[in-house]
Amino acid sequence: MARTTEPMSGAFARLIEANATDWQAYTQHRFVRELAEGTLPEAAFRHYLRQDYLFLIQFARVWGLAVYKSRTLAEIRQGLDSLKAIVEVELGLHVGYCAQWGIDEAALEDLSESRATLAYTRYVLDAGMSGDLVDLHVALAPCIIGYGEIARWILQQPFTVLEGNPYADWIAMYAGDEYQALVASELQWLDERLSALDAARMAALSNVFRDATRLEADFWQMGLDLA
Amino acid sequence: MARTTEPMSGAFARLIEANATDWQAYTQHRFVRELAEGTLPEAAFRHYLRQDYLFLIQFARVWGLAVYKSRTLAEIRQGLDSLKAIVEVELGLHVGYCAQWGIDEAALEDLSESRATLAYTRYVLDAGMSGDLVDLHVALAPCIIGYGEIARWILQQPFTVLEGNPYADWIAMYAGDEYQALVASELQWLDERLSALDAARMAALSNVFRDATRLEADFWQMGLDLA
Amino acid sequence: MARTTEPMSGAFARLIEANATDWQAYTQHRFVRELAEGTLPEAAFRHYLRQDYLFLIQFARVWGLAVYKSRTLAEIRQGLDSLKAIVEVELGLHVGYCAQWGIDEAALEDLSESRATLAYTRYVLDAGMSGDLVDLHVALAPCIIGYGEIARWILQQPFTVLEGNPYADWIAMYAGDEYQALVASELQWLDERLSALDAARMAALSNVFRDATRLEADFWQMGLDLA
Amino acid sequence: MARTTEPMSGAFARLIEANATDWQAYTQHRFVRELAEGTLPEAAFRHYLRQDYLFLIQFARVWGLAVYKSRTLAEIRQGLDSLKAIVEVELGLHVGYCAQWGIDEAALEDLSESRATLAYTRYVLDAGMSGDLVDLHVALAPCIIGYGEIARWILQQPFTVLEGNPYADWIAMYAGDEYQALVASELQWLDERLSALDAARMAALSNVFRDATRLEADFWQMGLDLA
Repeated sequence: MARTTEPMSGAFARLIEANATDWQAYTQHRFVRELAEGTLPEAAFRHYLRQDYLFLIQFARVWGLAVYKSRTLAEIRQGLDSLKAIVEVELGLHVGYCAQWGIDEAALEDLSESRATLAYTRYVLDAGMSGDLVDLHVALAPCIIGYGEIARWILQQPFTVLEGNPYADWIAMYAGDEYQALVASELQWLDERLSALDAARMAALSNVFRDATRLEADFWQMGLDLA
Repeated sequence: MARTTEPMSGAFARLIEANATDWQAYTQHRFVRELAEGTLPEAAFRHYLRQDYLFLIQFARVWGLAVYKSRTLAEIRQGLDSLKAIVEVELGLHVGYCAQWGIDEAALEDLSESRATLAYTRYVLDAGMSGDLVDLHVALAPCIIGYGEIARWILQQPFTVLEGNPYADWIAMYAGDEYQALVASELQWLDERLSALDAARMAALSNVFRDATRLEADFWQMGLDLA
Repeated sequence: MARTTEPMSGAFARLIEANATDWQAYTQHRFVRELAEGTLPEAAFRHYLRQDYLFLIQFARVWGLAVYKSRTLAEIRQGLDSLKAIVEVELGLHVGYCAQWGIDEAALEDLSESRATLAYTRYVLDAGMSGDLVDLHVALAPCIIGYGEIARWILQQPFTVLEGNPYADWIAMYAGDEYQALVASELQWLDERLSALDAARMAALSNVFRDATRLEADFWQMGLDLA
Repeated sequence: MARTTEPMSGAFARLIEANATDWQAYTQHRFVRELAEGTLPEAAFRHYLRQDYLFLIQFARVWGLAVYKSRTLAEIRQGLDSLKAIVEVELGLHVGYCAQWGIDEAALEDLSESRATLAYTRYVLDAGMSGDLVDLHVALAPCIIGYGEIARWILQQPFTVLEGNPYADWIAMYAGDEYQALVASELQWLDERLSALDAARMAALSNVFRDATRLEADFWQMGLDLA
């Protein structure tokens, strides 16, 4: 498990700096703190888990869109790998994890999307469709990169309790080497592309990042509100 | 001004019936009631007005999408007429109306989109892009048809006060003949298309209508919350 | 190898009947006849093979689009399976087959798309984006279902020569059980969806099928012209 | 009428230089030369005129797409102006001009799209949808800017005959001040955006420009072939 949070230093870090308040409100949200302490109401977590299943389905659509948007075979393969990771790995793991929390698959399939689920996923889809692959990845960054940062941040907090914490598995998964490697790879992809852009384009992407971050924060809030 | 609410009887009415609770929560929302009474805090209304400006800009994108999605010149003309109505008429009226409320145009251009604005507009755009023109119109129906119904409902309520009501102009505009004719025309378009669809397609569209209605209700709530 | 051509009898067969002349001009094109006889100039076949590589890349984009357009997890999985078949299986087989014909992978990567490649692939992408999943599948049908029918038709012709025919492998692949099973599965999918549609929708899809068939016929003609 | 061809000098001129052979094959196509001489068979011109009507309808869809792709109100207004120019002005002028050539409106509405019409229009739509507004404008440039250059080139050729030339009106329209002003405005828009791009992006746009130019040349060839 990664125990230190290395500060990001590339072009993506500039998007975080430009939206530091929103980023902190998301990555250090009360939902996250209570998860770290183990005090989060289980109903809140269950609600989050259920909606996260629906989120993954829309996430798969996003990667389908990334394949459509590709100009090269390398880009197609990148989108396909992400799509397979969602549909063939993560959805199955999620269903299994939900089962541990007493949520069976049939219940997942009958769910309606919460407002926060609709809001963030459709924002990413529209940003990706109306923009290009960089817009799409920036809109996803609060999710992909954010979860990695959240898990690493949790491990550094004095109030974090891992023993006996019902959410320890969740923290361990996102702090684990496998997920952190995925985050590093995504960061590298973004840094390469963002570093080639001019100020006007970066300003537009900063707005996308800000909006996406705010909508991801709402996803935590949804867990608390409907608990 | 139309003083009676004729019940709808076509295929679109079936979407409302299937989502009666969400529809009522939207069309008779506390924001609407306080607007009718004239008791809505002005800050709430101003916040709503500002975000409605950003909403109109995304609404223009929706009609651009409708033109892209068209198969016939008649469909292109329909989309273009709606697009012109937004960009050449409504935006100007809106800016003028905002000015009456002390909100100048420069302030409108500096705004960021609220979550509720992002959520509903991107939902409509994705429903329209991933679906067809009927999905797009159904996703817009809570807005186009809903505003007409809301204005007519307000005129029928015992608690409604028009004299001295700072929102009387708003009510009069949406209850007026011009807007009601637009609603009737949209209803007819939808009824014609929906009546040709099978049960599975109607069920999918009912989900679109439900989600869109919930997200439009959040647009009222946004006004209250940020007041 | 399937040695008989069973006549199709479902709703998809109606699209073929409505466009019988275009369908026959495509499926019994001179390129196909010369391929069956083994008299097709090798340069024509090589040109076709090279462009088919670029076609597959756009085909992958089409399945990415199908994933984006999906409303259910089952539809997402169907699109993903097709996408994987292209990127992880067919592209590799194609590169290997091209190598047998003396075309190396580096040469494939440097190619520009011919007009016929641009025309058919972009038509499918726009039909799928502006329409729905049924439009997308109907636009692909001349390719997916057509290749199966062409291979079966070749096996029934008196002028067909398999021994010593340099194109015997190509014929065997598309006439083989594996590809024919894929065709049967696609036909079933289309028949189920098309049988639920009204006359106006079928007429629109018939136009899509006609245009796609003509553009696929041009793909054969491209092989002959640039030989 | 502009009688001199000022050489372009901005960033867009680099796209022409990089694709000089394709550009010349398009702008100095045999169809164009015979049009300048007045020797083009009338059947060829009539076929072109008919397909140009269908082209304009897809062109309207392209501007709808541009509105959808817009990030700012200024971009929306630009797309809307172009859309209105097509639907409210050019289509009407085109129908009137076709009538002078003995082609009535009912005949136009019954047409099927030729392959060359399908190929170029769907290419533009896919380039615009999968790329951004710059891709869309670059894909349209052979049409918008090309027609202006063609008309100016015609006026400079020794073999050009205007008196008694049945196509003199066509030449005059595209060489006229109004159309040339539109070309200048489009050039300025492109030059501003292209000058901000790095080499990799310019290379990708050069491919879009090359493919679009070749497909526009086919539109001329279609006129000759089907005459």
